[in-house]
Amino acid sequence: MSGQLSIAIVGATGAVGQEFLKLFESRSFPVGSLKLLASERSVGKTYTFAGKTYTVELATPETFEGVDIAFFSAGASRSKALAPAAVEAGALVVDNSSAFRMDPNVPLVVPEINGNAVNPATRLIAVPNCSAIILLMAVAPLRELGTLDRLIVSTYQSASGGGAAMMRELEDQTRDALNGVESVNRNESFPPYAFNLFSHNTPINDDGCNEEEAKVVAESRKILNMQELKVNVTCVRVPVLRAHSESVTVEFAGAAPSVEQVREVLSRAPGVTVVDDRAGNKFPTPRDASGGDNVLVGRIRKDLSHPNAISMFVSGDQLLKGAALNAVQIAEHMLNLGQPAKHEQFA
Amino acid sequence: MSGQLSIAIVGATGAVGQEFLKLFESRSFPVGSLKLLASERSVGKTYTFAGKTYTVELATPETFEGVDIAFFSAGASRSKALAPAAVEAGALVVDNSSAFRMDPNVPLVVPEINGNAVNPATRLIAVPNCSAIILLMAVAPLRELGTLDRLIVSTYQSASGGGAAMMRELEDQTRDALNGVESVNRNESFPPYAFNLFSHNTPINDDGCNEEEAKVVAESRKILNMQELKVNVTCVRVPVLRAHSESVTVEFAGAAPSVEQVREVLSRAPGVTVVDDRAGNKFPTPRDASGGDNVLVGRIRKDLSHPNAISMFVSGDQLLKGAALNAVQIAEHMLNLGQPAKHEQFA
Repeated sequence: MSGQLSIAIVGATGAVGQEFLKLFESRSFPVGSLKLLASERSVGKTYTFAGKTYTVELATPETFEGVDIAFFSAGASRSKALAPAAVEAGALVVDNSSAFRMDPNVPLVVPEINGNAVNPATRLIAVPNCSAIILLMAVAPLRELGTLDRLIVSTYQSASGGGAAMMRELEDQTRDALNGVESVNRNESFPPYAFNLFSHNTPINDDGCNEEEAKVVAESRKILNMQELKVNVTCVRVPVLRAHSESVTVEFAGAAPSVEQVREVLSRAPGVTVVDDRAGNKFPTPRDASGGDNVLVGRIRKDLSHPNAISMFVSGDQLLKGAALNAVQIAEHMLNLGQPAKHEQFA
Repeated sequence: MSGQLSIAIVGATGAVGQEFLKLFESRSFPVGSLKLLASERSVGKTYTFAGKTYTVELATPETFEGVDIAFFSAGASRSKALAPAAVEAGALVVDNSSAFRMDPNVPLVVPEINGNAVNPATRLIAVPNCSAIILLMAVAPLRELGTLDRLIVSTYQSASGGGAAMMRELEDQTRDALNGVESVNRNESFPPYAFNLFSHNTPINDDGCNEEEAKVVAESRKILNMQELKVNVTCVRVPVLRAHSESVTVEFAGAAPSVEQVREVLSRAPGVTVVDDRAGNKFPTPRDASGGDNVLVGRIRKDLSHPNAISMFVSGDQLLKGAALNAVQIAEHMLNLGQPAKHEQFA
């Protein structure tokens, strides 16, 4: 390789952190050196990457010395505490947390949609909320067909959004249920999960929206640069492991495009695969979306209840396009802009 | 008891059929004699009801002689073939299938909503689609607060809607998945179900709607007697065993009622329980709805994307209010109207 980079992952032991390692390999990301960083309880764990063993180190403000790109996926408070130090040390920071998303000075980026929100001087870039990314991958291309007026969305969100611990909890509780054992709900922050679903377990604001819903509304407006966009979203966690699905109705300011137009536009949208076989009853499922890069879109139809609206159904891998993949794509986009410069010494 | 009835259940061995037996006991339904009817492969199976053993007999046009009330839950083709004979034999027929729902001569009834659609002379009554019942239990009471204009609904439907076989399939495939075994998909009529969800597996019409969605639209209009009601519905099966949930946005013809008004109206609506604890993050779940008579409603909030709309989240037991309970309530309603007359010989 012609040049390589010094990479750090903060939150390396988490569900998203682990996806970074797989993506670096599968996408031949130019990793020269690698730091796996985490909190104290994970220090000393080892992981193999590209045939070499790496030991998890404690994430501190000092660990970013010499790092070219730091990927953060360890929650908002960790990002708030450490990302400024990483930027200060000269790293490009790509942050999966909500810490800086609504900061007017920080671009919130889905490369296929608003890659132009960054420039070579950008040092801190926020990865949007997973539900917002998956929604907008299907919705943003439709701007070619008319002015978006209102989105009405109900989500079917996977356990992975709550991290590796929630995925394990879903599996453990489901195993108990199948064995006729009443599960101890080991995590009091959400309802029983086996063969169950529940309204997203984040605090409810005065408008009656949970935090996840408020994020989807605010982030969609920022990413699309449409502060006036009307968004109604209901966020629900379902007993699915790692891909989110969303039932989406899009109202346009004028007459709705035809189903054929929507299919045509989405068929050539980067990162989108149309799965819309009416005769075969084959549409997006989280199982089919899991492990794939693309967001699947189907059930494309006119909304018979509104002359200006269409409806569709979307599934996308929460850990990939909803998190790690989008972050790596942001870094790749910056590398295409020439930043950060690669080091010959790793070659 | 002062009088008893001769009852038949067609489809007695199914998931809904079995709920009838439990409801007859728990509600002290005036069962004098009981015929358990089914197709050939179930003939000879035995069930205990009120301490007595009953053997399943073949359902034929001749078996309805002397029957006062016949509950049908064996699919539309069975109802079409046998219900006319049951009516002819003098039985009151309460039909859970879709066979007669849209027949203008057949009332389609949710007793709390349109019990007035029947009269003592009615001999055939259709039970609506489960998703329509659960939706309308939450929506119909809101007519007191304004004129309904449009409903936008996304469903989270349980396996029980596909019968006992689909429930077993969900459990079996999930057990395999937890054991790391790739399931043989024993039922080719729907996608893999373990930790997965899918667009309702019924044929898609020219408008791009599946049969379930078309039922919800047409039946909602008939039950509410509002042919002009606009309805957008997306029907999705989720890996949940026996209760349906629905994300519902209601647009009124005028300004939306307040959250307090909606809560107040639903709090006194028969068959509805408001579960709307924002501070405790406690809202309807299918697990909490399972085994209960009432439809749970929560997440009641203004739709910030539309001045005339509110949103809410609903869960209801698919086998109970979505099917068997609603059917038994219809029969109880007819008994209150004096039909069919009870026989003293059973007393």
